[in-house]
Amino acid sequence: MNSDDIVQTAHALADAAREAILPFFRAEGLLSDNKAGTGFDPVTEADRAAERAMRDILAERRPEDSVLGEEYGESRGTSGLTWVLDPIDGTRAFLSGTPTWGVLIAVSDQTGPVYGLIDQPYTGERFEGGFGRAGMQGPHGARALGTLPGRALSEAILFTTFPEVGSAAERAGFEAVAREVKLTRFGMDCYAYALLAAGQIDMVIEAGLQPYDVQAPIAVIEAAGGIVTDWQGQPAHGGGRVLAAAAPEQHAAALEILSKVEG
Amino acid sequence: MNSDDIVQTAHALADAAREAILPFFRAEGLLSDNKAGTGFDPVTEADRAAERAMRDILAERRPEDSVLGEEYGESRGTSGLTWVLDPIDGTRAFLSGTPTWGVLIAVSDQTGPVYGLIDQPYTGERFEGGFGRAGMQGPHGARALGTLPGRALSEAILFTTFPEVGSAAERAGFEAVAREVKLTRFGMDCYAYALLAAGQIDMVIEAGLQPYDVQAPIAVIEAAGGIVTDWQGQPAHGGGRVLAAAAPEQHAAALEILSKVEG
Repeated sequence: MNSDDIVQTAHALADAAREAILPFFRAEGLLSDNKAGTGFDPVTEADRAAERAMRDILAERRPEDSVLGEEYGESRGTSGLTWVLDPIDGTRAFLSGTPTWGVLIAVSDQTGPVYGLIDQPYTGERFEGGFGRAGMQGPHGARALGTLPGRALSEAILFTTFPEVGSAAERAGFEAVAREVKLTRFGMDCYAYALLAAGQIDMVIEAGLQPYDVQAPIAVIEAAGGIVTDWQGQPAHGGGRVLAAAAPEQHAAALEILSKVEG
Repeated sequence: MNSDDIVQTAHALADAAREAILPFFRAEGLLSDNKAGTGFDPVTEADRAAERAMRDILAERRPEDSVLGEEYGESRGTSGLTWVLDPIDGTRAFLSGTPTWGVLIAVSDQTGPVYGLIDQPYTGERFEGGFGRAGMQGPHGARALGTLPGRALSEAILFTTFPEVGSAAERAGFEAVAREVKLTRFGMDCYAYALLAAGQIDMVIEAGLQPYDVQAPIAVIEAAGGIVTDWQGQPAHGGGRVLAAAAPEQHAAALEILSKVEG
């Protein structure tokens, strides 16, 4: 595996996604439609334009790899590597104008993600992890990523995107952890995973995720020293219920509560 | 009133606050203490350093004006104008690393705020309104501020900072509005008011605010064409319960629900 080429390609994808998306962000008359038919699940033109731009680059530079994207599904390659793309994770954030959505790019083999990148085009922040890298670049320079040390839940900062979390049982499980922590915050979408990797917060707990929502965060957080599993302590790269933690102490304490949530 | 000097002074304060605060943002070993004695209400060294820096400038440039600051209280002047300063609105956001806190600077006379500025030092965004100005500067250039047009609650995007909102009655009032809207989002602190002024969202509803939390947002939103009152439709610059809306339609519809919340 040529890790340099993978990393360079990932940055080229993120650059292309920025260019495709930014003209739509905070633009008037934003186009969207409703994927699910019910509820509020907008897909913007930006989402589609960014995924097309990324797939075009992959078709040229990495034609032997598979691609799994939120908008255009799966295309099979022969290399054993899959590029897992979520052009805009956090479409509700995007439509609200908050800079907490992100472009998620992961490269996975049969064991799960081996490299991940979280990009926030508006703030100009890019977080990456894998192949020995764990760093971020932003408007105030570059720095290494590293998660917080182990500490008690009573000292911990917990994030999720919205208070409902998921099913009633999933919400109750989340709230049982939230009662034990120092501070619970909402509304950050994939940006919360970046903050965890950057050593700002202790935990992110979510449910109902897709593989493309979580594979890039897994790679970035693990490279920064953190732990990501499902609510039973098993690999989370298939999506569903996710517990991301800065260190074994916070992970074990939250898992003890979450593992009791029924399937 | 020399509005040019007031505006130039406000920008000088915001520049000084940025310089004072940024070294502390996402720094390791952040100092804080607990103002209330109970709960989680951190005050950082950054908060204090920024207010001192702003007060030093005012003492030199505007010695005749009063100053009301979150950290160092009130100092009386003779001009009839008061600078209302919140060096870091959103200290929990600050401690979590999210770029949703802000520096709030307002200038008020006996009628309320006449000019306001919301600055986000990390993203480099600055929103201002008053004296005929309504604009923002950010990492991707400058643009005019203007709120969304009137539309039904069923089309509206609503923000507040945390799901508890305030007392049980206040939370119930908020949730009654939230049930009517298209999308409710959390966690943005003063950044939500900036998004309202920028035409991204329809409403912000909060409770338990201090005058320094709300005066700059009032000036910015009103300059952008929006409406800010308390939950009875009265002036909100004294703090407490706040309803900020893009247009009369959203304001009236939310007020009909919130005005029934008991004191």
